[in-house]
Amino acid sequence: MSKKDGKSKAEKAEKKARKEAGEAKGFLARVYVALKPTVNDPEGLTIANALGSLGFDGVEGVRSGKYFQVRLRAADAKAAAEQVDQMCSRLLANPVIETYEFELEKA
Amino acid sequence: MSKKDGKSKAEKAEKKARKEAGEAKGFLARVYVALKPTVNDPEGLTIANALGSLGFDGVEGVRSGKYFQVRLRAADAKAAAEQVDQMCSRLLANPVIETYEFELEKA
Repeated sequence: MSKKDGKSKAEKAEKKARKEAGEAKGFLARVYVALKPTVNDPEGLTIANALGSLGFDGVEGVRSGKYFQVRLRAADAKAAAEQVDQMCSRLLANPVIETYEFELEKA
Repeated sequence: MSKKDGKSKAEKAEKKARKEAGEAKGFLARVYVALKPTVNDPEGLTIANALGSLGFDGVEGVRSGKYFQVRLRAADAKAAAEQVDQMCSRLLANPVIETYEFELEKA
């Protein structure tokens, strides 16, 4: 493969990447990560007690968790959902003690 | 006021409280607390970088926040919403740097 061919291959790949990036749409994912029901939640307990001492005596329980807003570009909603699901299981949530759910909207 | 009157007054108050508690309905509030857009979010930046190094190159930004599930009893949905709003502004969110929103459903 001559140097010229190599160069044109690289250019094609770059053009393709730019084209894909250009066509990619913007999405906003709202990710909710909560502790599994079987896992103790000291933070939730502390908050529930604090709410009680502030006079909110109707409170029966509090579970705490994490909330992420992820802005991303993807070819379409399906690709975006797959990426977000991967992000959750690989980084945003600890699958051993947490569950996650997310909502996706066009940004 | 004789001792007997006092006793019956206390009984009435207790009966009323029990009646109200008996009639109170169960609600689940999902509370989302996020940093205001003008506030730096080092955790979000760190997560965005980590997602990038995991190969998610479509990620444009991450904002982190807190997520609470509050189980409470209240006379009706309006009263429950008012209580949750108070809980947010007095404890769950710091109004100086955070915004909050919540969804309410019957539990």
